[in-house]
Amino acid sequence: MIRTALPTLHAEPDASAILQTNEAIAPMIHRTPVLTCRSIDEMAGCRLFFKCENFQKIGAFKMRGASSAALRLSEEEKSKGLATHSSGNHAQAVAMSARMLGIPAYIVMPENAPAIKRAATEGYGATVTPCTNTLEARESTLEQVVAETGATFIHPYNDYNVIAGQASCAKELLEEQPGLEVLIAPVGGGGLISGTALSARYFAPGVKVYGAEPSAVDDAYRSFKSGTMQHNTTTDTVADGLRTNLGEKTFRIIQRELEDIFLVEESEIVAAMRLVWERMKIIIEPSCAVPLAAVLKYPAPFAGKNVGLIITGGNVDVSKLPF
Amino acid sequence: MIRTALPTLHAEPDASAILQTNEAIAPMIHRTPVLTCRSIDEMAGCRLFFKCENFQKIGAFKMRGASSAALRLSEEEKSKGLATHSSGNHAQAVAMSARMLGIPAYIVMPENAPAIKRAATEGYGATVTPCTNTLEARESTLEQVVAETGATFIHPYNDYNVIAGQASCAKELLEEQPGLEVLIAPVGGGGLISGTALSARYFAPGVKVYGAEPSAVDDAYRSFKSGTMQHNTTTDTVADGLRTNLGEKTFRIIQRELEDIFLVEESEIVAAMRLVWERMKIIIEPSCAVPLAAVLKYPAPFAGKNVGLIITGGNVDVSKLPF
Repeated sequence: MIRTALPTLHAEPDASAILQTNEAIAPMIHRTPVLTCRSIDEMAGCRLFFKCENFQKIGAFKMRGASSAALRLSEEEKSKGLATHSSGNHAQAVAMSARMLGIPAYIVMPENAPAIKRAATEGYGATVTPCTNTLEARESTLEQVVAETGATFIHPYNDYNVIAGQASCAKELLEEQPGLEVLIAPVGGGGLISGTALSARYFAPGVKVYGAEPSAVDDAYRSFKSGTMQHNTTTDTVADGLRTNLGEKTFRIIQRELEDIFLVEESEIVAAMRLVWERMKIIIEPSCAVPLAAVLKYPAPFAGKNVGLIITGGNVDVSKLPF
Repeated sequence: MIRTALPTLHAEPDASAILQTNEAIAPMIHRTPVLTCRSIDEMAGCRLFFKCENFQKIGAFKMRGASSAALRLSEEEKSKGLATHSSGNHAQAVAMSARMLGIPAYIVMPENAPAIKRAATEGYGATVTPCTNTLEARESTLEQVVAETGATFIHPYNDYNVIAGQASCAKELLEEQPGLEVLIAPVGGGGLISGTALSARYFAPGVKVYGAEPSAVDDAYRSFKSGTMQHNTTTDTVADGLRTNLGEKTFRIIQRELEDIFLVEESEIVAAMRLVWERMKIIIEPSCAVPLAAVLKYPAPFAGKNVGLIITGGNVDVSKLPF
C-alpha cells in the first residue's frame, strides 16, 4: 500500500509542487517512453518526440492527475473513498488510484457508457452507479453518492491537485529531451494542456506551448481568442476525450501561458490517427491524434524544430474504428 | 551506403555466423524493444517478454533475413540487384535492403495483392512486376525477371543466409533477458523459428523452443509429428504471414531442435491479437498472435516460467480488421 502524503494545493502548482508531485506519484504511474518516427518527421518537416501516455497505467495520462489528487487526502478522507462522474479514462484512473491506495471508489457513469468501460472500471474494484446521460443527472447522482458515502469528489481537470499531476507528463518529457523547442498537447477540459504549460514555464522557459482542439468542440479556441469562457454547443467529435468545456482554473492558465490553439477537422483527426497506427504501430485514441493533425495542418511554427507531442491515451474500442 | 561484406553460408549458421550476421546487419535494422504486460502475464500464468519486431524497419522481422542475404552478395551481384516474389513483408524487406545498399530490387507480386502493399514496395524504390495469383505464375514470372535482369533471388526462408538473419532476433532477446527459460515463435515457412532455435542452442542451451501454428495451415505440425515434409492444402487463415509451407532446410532444423509445435484455431488467434491491441496498445498482425494464443491454450509448459515471445510484425490493413 502507498502511504506518501502530499499537501493540498489551493493555488496553481509551482515548480517545487510539480517536482514533489512527480516524485510522490511515481510508484502509482509508469514512466512512459518517448518514441520517434522518421517517416512522420519527413511528412511534418520537424523532429517529433511522442510522449506515449497510451502506455500509461489504465491506458491514459489521467492516472497522473487522479493519483496526484488522491494522495492529498487525509487518512480519514481516504478511508471514505474517492468519487467521480465519468464514462472515460478519468473513471478508470480514479478507480485504479483507489485500488492502489486500498480505499473505495464510487463512479457515476451514464447508462449508455460502453459495457467494456463499465467492466474495466468495476474490474478495478470500483462501485459503479448508473445515471441517465445528461450533465445534470451525472452531477445530481454524484452529489447523492457523495452524501451517502462521504467519499471525496475528484474533478477530472478543474483542480490544482489534478493539474499538478498532469504537469508531471511534460516535466518527464522535457527532462528526457532537453533540446525541445515546442510542446503541443490536445485541449479538452484543459487539465493536461495547463499542466504542460506550467511545466514548460518552470523547467524549460524558452519552450513554446500550443494547444490543439477539434473544430467541432472549439470552446477553448473561442475562449482563448475572446478572453472570456465559451462553451461547446455540441459534443459531436470522434475525439471523445475532448468533448468537455474548460474550467475556470484551466482557462486562466491557458489564457496566460499558451502561444496559440489550433483547430482541426474530423477527417484530419482520423487521418492523423491512422498515420500513427500504420507508421508507428502503436494504438492511440482519436483525441491524441489532434495535435499531430495540427502539426501537419499548420507546419510553420514547427518547421525544423524539436517538437514534444503528448500522446494522451490508447483506450479505443477496436471493433468501432473510424477507418 | 553500407559496404559490409559477409561470407555466403552453405550450411546452417553456427554461433559465430549468427554473431557476425547480427553485427553486420545492425546498421540496416532497429534493435527492437522488449515489452512486458502485467495483465497478460496474469492471464497466462507466466512472465512474457515480447520482442517487438512490429517496430522493426518495414514493420517486421523479415528485414533481418533480407539484409543478411543481401550483404553476402558480391559487388557484381549487388550491381544487378535483388529479386523475390512476395505480396507480404518479405517483398518490403528486400525492397528496403536494396534501397539501403543503393541497388535495384525487382519484386513479383500477385495482381490481387493489396494496393497499399504494392505502393509501399514501390515507395522503397522497387520495380514491381504483377502476375496472376498462383505459385506457378509467381515462380515463372520471377524466373523471367531474373533472366532479364541478372538479379539475385532472395528466398523468403529456405536459405541459410536468411535464417542467420532471423536468428539475430532471438539472439538479441536472449542477450537482453538472460533469465529466459522458454522461447516461442510462429511457424510459417520456418525461417524465424529455425533461426530462433539455433540461437537458443548456441546462446542459451537450456532454453526450450516451441513453435505455434494455425490449425488451418498445419504443415509444420504434421511434418514435425510425422517426420516427413507435409504440405498445406488450403491457405485459409487470418494469419496471412503463416500460409507458406516449410522448406527442406528449415524443416531439418525444426525437426531436430524444437520441443513441440502447438496448433491454435482462428478464433483463438483473433482473440489473442485483440488482447495485445487492447492491453499493450501496440499493433500486431494476426501471425504474431499465434504464439500468445498457444501460451494461453496450452499453459502447462509455460507455467511460472520466463517466456520469450517474438512479435513478428505489425503490418495490418487497419480498415479490414478481424474484430
